[in-house]
Amino acid sequence: MLSKSQIKLITSLKQKKYRQQHGLFVVEGIKTIKELLASSLTLHALYTTESFNIDAKLETIISAADLKRISFLTTPNTALAVFEMPKSQSVKTDKLIVALDSVRDPGNLGTIIRLCDWFGIQDLVCNNETVDCFNPKVIQATMGSITRVNISYVNLEAFIRSVNIPVYGAFMEGDNVYSSDLPENGVLVMGNEANGISKDIENLVTDKISIPRFGDLQATESLNVATATAILLSEFKRRF
Amino acid sequence: MLSKSQIKLITSLKQKKYRQQHGLFVVEGIKTIKELLASSLTLHALYTTESFNIDAKLETIISAADLKRISFLTTPNTALAVFEMPKSQSVKTDKLIVALDSVRDPGNLGTIIRLCDWFGIQDLVCNNETVDCFNPKVIQATMGSITRVNISYVNLEAFIRSVNIPVYGAFMEGDNVYSSDLPENGVLVMGNEANGISKDIENLVTDKISIPRFGDLQATESLNVATATAILLSEFKRRF
Repeated sequence: MLSKSQIKLITSLKQKKYRQQHGLFVVEGIKTIKELLASSLTLHALYTTESFNIDAKLETIISAADLKRISFLTTPNTALAVFEMPKSQSVKTDKLIVALDSVRDPGNLGTIIRLCDWFGIQDLVCNNETVDCFNPKVIQATMGSITRVNISYVNLEAFIRSVNIPVYGAFMEGDNVYSSDLPENGVLVMGNEANGISKDIENLVTDKISIPRFGDLQATESLNVATATAILLSEFKRRF
Repeated sequence: MLSKSQIKLITSLKQKKYRQQHGLFVVEGIKTIKELLASSLTLHALYTTESFNIDAKLETIISAADLKRISFLTTPNTALAVFEMPKSQSVKTDKLIVALDSVRDPGNLGTIIRLCDWFGIQDLVCNNETVDCFNPKVIQATMGSITRVNISYVNLEAFIRSVNIPVYGAFMEGDNVYSSDLPENGVLVMGNEANGISKDIENLVTDKISIPRFGDLQATESLNVATATAILLSEFKRRF
């Protein structure tokens, strides 16, 4: 059975301010929950229609109808877990860091977190206008990668000023990335879906790069930020 | 004013079978509509709250309330257009062809169409289990690229058997794509989101390739199909 206060807490976690207030976030889907249970994250509570055979103090068996009441999904899975947010670790500047300048779409952030995991990027640094990585739609899209990438929300301008490494950003007029000498450490900045990298951050970019377009002049004027990140990370990593 | 038969026709176009029956599809959003009006596509009808100053026989000025009745979006734009589906052209086998084996997510297909446009891929060949490219969510994600890529729905096995060119597919155990010699023409097959390339198509793949994973052993086991397509197309094209 679910208590009123449990329902109130869980549904409040749809909103960033309550996630931050409680230091908790929601995960749905058995596969992702199992992956997170096997990680270093701390489980706060698990609500499920079938037992996971974990610590009984943390697990509550509920009906499908009750799950529907707390689920954020239109078609709920069979379990919903509440985890404690991990603390951000300090950022290592001897490796490639990905920095996001106001990426707003949860699906894009989720895909970028998964790409960081694939390409062995340890640190993802986001400005505070970037969508919250504990947003349920982001968690859904990361497929568990969220536990393996250290994500920090910072004043991005101050952060970039504080690290003394090359800063790369994609611009139409940048150097062809296929013939650029890319370093092992640096910051790769990816910008907002509609507006790209903001002027203040652009001023801090030391190396402007571009992905060449092979289609004709009428071809699409830009790539989606997640697919551009995929191509650029592949270019940074294929050399090592 | 909208007639009942107009409303019935437009709302029916949410479904693939009615799109195919009428040979029509819906586009929303002023930017995409303008891009499609400037393309070789034929406009069937435009419903808008503000005139586009086009042929008056094709344009109907309607109220925001009427637009809301016919829009497929939760938050409608100010215009909805109905275009005729273009006819597929014959596929050219002297260039790189992208083939999709049951890609189901509209956002993924839209992103792949946009990537084909960016990388100058003229032909995108889909099996009949791949989501319909005239699905409104696909159209929304392509940002107009749909007019510049020739998309065919075929029996993919028969199609691949009929073309006498190398067939590439991404598999975990494939050769490292970064050190593979990639040709100027061939078929690049991308598989289903959950199951990858089907067994029947795998049997026709002449060259298995893989995108190396740089993260540790616990890292995510796969990339999203659209981001994998981005990386592979970049690899095929960066050499030429």
